[in-house]
Amino acid sequence: MPALEKVRYRPVPVRDLFLEMKNLSELMIDLAYSAALFNDRELAEDILELENRVDTLDYLLEMTIMIAARDAHDAEALAGVSAVASAADKISDAAADIAAIVTQNIGVHPIVSQVFEKVEERLMQAKVSADSSLVGKRVGELDLAARMGVDIIALRRDKDWIINPQKTEHIRSGDVLIVRGVHSGIKEFKELAEQKSRRRGD
Amino acid sequence: MPALEKVRYRPVPVRDLFLEMKNLSELMIDLAYSAALFNDRELAEDILELENRVDTLDYLLEMTIMIAARDAHDAEALAGVSAVASAADKISDAAADIAAIVTQNIGVHPIVSQVFEKVEERLMQAKVSADSSLVGKRVGELDLAARMGVDIIALRRDKDWIINPQKTEHIRSGDVLIVRGVHSGIKEFKELAEQKSRRRGD
Repeated sequence: MPALEKVRYRPVPVRDLFLEMKNLSELMIDLAYSAALFNDRELAEDILELENRVDTLDYLLEMTIMIAARDAHDAEALAGVSAVASAADKISDAAADIAAIVTQNIGVHPIVSQVFEKVEERLMQAKVSADSSLVGKRVGELDLAARMGVDIIALRRDKDWIINPQKTEHIRSGDVLIVRGVHSGIKEFKELAEQKSRRRGD
Repeated sequence: MPALEKVRYRPVPVRDLFLEMKNLSELMIDLAYSAALFNDRELAEDILELENRVDTLDYLLEMTIMIAARDAHDAEALAGVSAVASAADKISDAAADIAAIVTQNIGVHPIVSQVFEKVEERLMQAKVSADSSLVGKRVGELDLAARMGVDIIALRRDKDWIINPQKTEHIRSGDVLIVRGVHSGIKEFKELAEQKSRRRGD
């Protein structure tokens, strides 16, 4: 875990902070179940990082709301935003609790796996190799939903997360893609993302 | 809110308790966003009831785990189940916090609505009227996904909740259906569920 830095106020629209908190908290629950099911340490560590990010967003949001509220009327109007943001933070904490089972090697009981496996659609992460045919392609161009029944729900590029990447987003070598879809589709996609260059005759 | 009763141990398989907790907690988040977005008091009250139910399930689960664990090995194996169940409980608490915005008339700031509206698919609840053509039909028979792009994700019958009802489940008059789908589809479905008998010439 990185050293915690003091969160300093900077002006960011409340809407943007709030939207990112909501999207992240929902994504994190899905990721946490996947991390536990597949005992995926890397994914679990990503979740703990995202949890820090949601904490930071929550601080920024609370500070922004304080500055925005000038009278009792504003305060009443904004109390609901603060309440929903706290709920998103609580959800992300819960996701981190699930991820901690993996990072602390507590181990996932077969009961947990059985229940998580009931989910028809699965999540998977794949790191795009330099030789992958995905490199340089736009997300929309891949037509993944129609071709293999999968959907890129998030993309990690170095330390940045892009949630629900736009169709125009270009995929780069080294991107970590979080994909949701049917079992056969995500397997096919992982091979495509992680493919090595093949010589003729291989 | 109903008076709280003492939760007494009764033997229920851990897997069943755990599966219901996970499903309910996920459903509750979706329901909570819908309740806040549409300022739907009835739905918000349902969520507070479901939160009580998840609390009860969590108690039962913890008691069952205690009884099941006979030695250190069992305890280690079951610690993960307890951790995930606590996370599901935390998620359901967060959903109840969001629902409380509606029941306590805190009001939903336009920012919250804007962000929740971003969600492409919406939830809606519809009470099946005695005259509805849905009465007596099986869920599978309706072929809702193909016909109008909607899906029945839960069904409340008196005090019971049926999550992800089976295709063979018969719809009864008075059932409250929670439906997820595209805007046009859920509107069409609501009319179908709540339709009054029409006389010729109306």
